[in-house]
Amino acid sequence: MTRVVCDMMVSADGFSAGLDQSEDQPFGDLDTSILQSWRFDTAEENRAEIDAIVGGAKSFVMGRNMFGPVRGGWTGEWNGWWGPEPPYHAPVFVLTHHEREPLEMEGGTTFHFVTDGIHAALERARRAADGRDVRVGGGVATLRQYLRERLVDEMHLAVSPVLLGSGEHLLADIDLPALGYRITEYVPGGKATHVVLRR
Amino acid sequence: MTRVVCDMMVSADGFSAGLDQSEDQPFGDLDTSILQSWRFDTAEENRAEIDAIVGGAKSFVMGRNMFGPVRGGWTGEWNGWWGPEPPYHAPVFVLTHHEREPLEMEGGTTFHFVTDGIHAALERARRAADGRDVRVGGGVATLRQYLRERLVDEMHLAVSPVLLGSGEHLLADIDLPALGYRITEYVPGGKATHVVLRR
Repeated sequence: MTRVVCDMMVSADGFSAGLDQSEDQPFGDLDTSILQSWRFDTAEENRAEIDAIVGGAKSFVMGRNMFGPVRGGWTGEWNGWWGPEPPYHAPVFVLTHHEREPLEMEGGTTFHFVTDGIHAALERARRAADGRDVRVGGGVATLRQYLRERLVDEMHLAVSPVLLGSGEHLLADIDLPALGYRITEYVPGGKATHVVLRR
Repeated sequence: MTRVVCDMMVSADGFSAGLDQSEDQPFGDLDTSILQSWRFDTAEENRAEIDAIVGGAKSFVMGRNMFGPVRGGWTGEWNGWWGPEPPYHAPVFVLTHHEREPLEMEGGTTFHFVTDGIHAALERARRAADGRDVRVGGGVATLRQYLRERLVDEMHLAVSPVLLGSGEHLLADIDLPALGYRITEYVPGGKATHVVLRR
């Protein structure tokens, strides 16, 4: 049974990304590495965590900015942020307004460019997942759309004890209980507090 | 050296109180007891915590709703939510638009009604504190005003692993780093995650 899952870091004041995202600063005007410190402190320790996040899913959906700079259409040169072998090893459905042929990378990752909206992208990802999980990779705007449409079954939030002050707010104006979400797990940790939400 | 301190509970999605506060529902349309579960689970266990919160301060400031229903002016009958002996045992400066004589209660609590704004109330509370702490008791709107004016020196947030979905958002549109606040303590707990912010 396919579940739609996601995983997001959020600051203590509710932000998950900076503003002004661009080619030069894919995460916007914000050093989001401070949000990620719980995860990447030592690569070995956290390898299992990263594998769990990426490896649990059989297909992925991501927003345009998460794949790369596409303002004004594809340049035809851009193949994502991840080098020749992206860590997904699965089909990745990229939301975009610009048509592009599928992009096959090393290691089993193929980027598919979906121009007919979030429902269509998720439907294609579901079929590709073949009963395993679909992961909505982000960014924040994409995840907010899927949350609002009640399409996310499970969300893992890692709340970091940092203040960002401004940026993209993850949950502003999203009434999670009204959408059917509730917190089912609460795991306080030394570097972040983890909560799991389910519908 | 007087510090201005406060203490607030907040849900995982950022809310500290409900809407539609009134005489019948002083905390609004919300059962905030779920936010307080970390504190009031067993009265004895938490007595020290409550004493620390209330007892550390020598004077208090609070908003109108926190004292009681005063829409349209004082009825002359209302003496606060706390019975004949409120837990403050100190001067309490209540922000209001309606003049009223000071109200002396049992046990050392006197409510003073301040009609000339948050700065004036804090100044009077500072003088009354005589070098000890002033505590801004709430509610949310009052605390937000003091935060925005950079008048709070230390804030303790107890972040509860619950979702409220709507209500009074504690930090919306308040850029704490820009106001000079940073997180100085992070204490993950079994029922809430505690963070301390200082300027």
